Amino acid sequence: MKLLRQKVINEGIVLGSGVLKVDSFLNHQMDPFLMREVGREFTRRFAGDEITKVLTIESSGIAPGIMTALELEVPLIFARKQKSLTLTEDIYVEKVYSFTKKESNEITVSKKFIAPGERVLIVDDFLANGEAAFGLARIVEQAGASVAGIGIVIEKSFQPGGRLLQKAGYRVESLVRIASLEDGVVSFVDDEEEEVLLG
Amino acid sequence: MKLLRQKVINEGIVLGSGVLKVDSFLNHQMDPFLMREVGREFTRRFAGDEITKVLTIESSGIAPGIMTALELEVPLIFARKQKSLTLTEDIYVEKVYSFTKKESNEITVSKKFIAPGERVLIVDDFLANGEAAFGLARIVEQAGASVAGIGIVIEKSFQPGGRLLQKAGYRVESLVRIASLEDGVVSFVDDEEEEVLLG
Repeated sequence: MKLLRQKVINEGIVLGSGVLKVDSFLNHQMDPFLMREVGREFTRRFAGDEITKVLTIESSGIAPGIMTALELEVPLIFARKQKSLTLTEDIYVEKVYSFTKKESNEITVSKKFIAPGERVLIVDDFLANGEAAFGLARIVEQAGASVAGIGIVIEKSFQPGGRLLQKAGYRVESLVRIASLEDGVVSFVDDEEEEVLLG
Repeated sequence: MKLLRQKVINEGIVLGSGVLKVDSFLNHQMDPFLMREVGREFTRRFAGDEITKVLTIESSGIAPGIMTALELEVPLIFARKQKSLTLTEDIYVEKVYSFTKKESNEITVSKKFIAPGERVLIVDDFLANGEAAFGLARIVEQAGASVAGIGIVIEKSFQPGGRLLQKAGYRVESLVRIASLEDGVVSFVDDEEEEVLLG
């Protein structure tokens, strides 16, 4: 997705140790037009997959998630990272480790929002080690629903998440794939390969 | 806003002690069409106010916030409830007490995203005691920017937040105002008054 790649080039900041800061358009300040285009692109890629729900995780997944849900004309669910007082019963719980924050969170989804047989599209802002995506997928499967695919805004392809998810049989669609952040420079998975993926 | 009021009537669950659960369309599962209408309604109400940014707080404010930002054609910023590893310097910090969760959070916004002179619309899902809205307003003012208004999806008018914010000089626009949750029944601030406000 060229618009997104250009944003990463223009506004992304490499912080070292594999961290790409994109807080000007994706995970602190957000560009609503870019989010709408992200939603449209996921919808193009998963058209015909009979998706019934979009599932994401708070907080940075919500904006791309709601735009995707709007385009697909289905509800969005966002998993919570800890139990809230009004969400204590009848929930699916999975443990997810965050390498960035160096802590484990319990992620929760209310059972009443995923019915057996549903086709769920998982959407998230980043894919690195795949912990969050695997946790969300386990929740979908606990519900007796199926994972139609995993839509990622930015994949750090030098980390194992994408590979592990595909090996586990999931379809992963990443709008931008980063090959390396070495020496403070963002390198993308090569253009030719991306063109093929973009079809 | 009739569509929203109907959703509250059809799907809201009164949990007692002043808690209204709306997790089927607003703060766990989300209805993207309703969120778009919320964004459009805030935009109608604040048209001509020369808003340059929308500011909200994670997590449930993000969906109405991004839809409002899309309609107003400005960026959205969401305040974080705790410092993340990639957001440690040059931030505004305010302490906010959550009566629901019975805990204080530090809410943070990166200084680079609010410039002096900006006109900021604060958007949030709920207004009860006004703690979050006041915290966000203090951040806007710390930045030398001004609060154009405060847009609330559901105001619990039997709690003091709305009154306190208006007394402090802020313009508050709530799309639905709940007068009471007594005996498990949702009562709205009376129709006639709302029609005038909607006028």
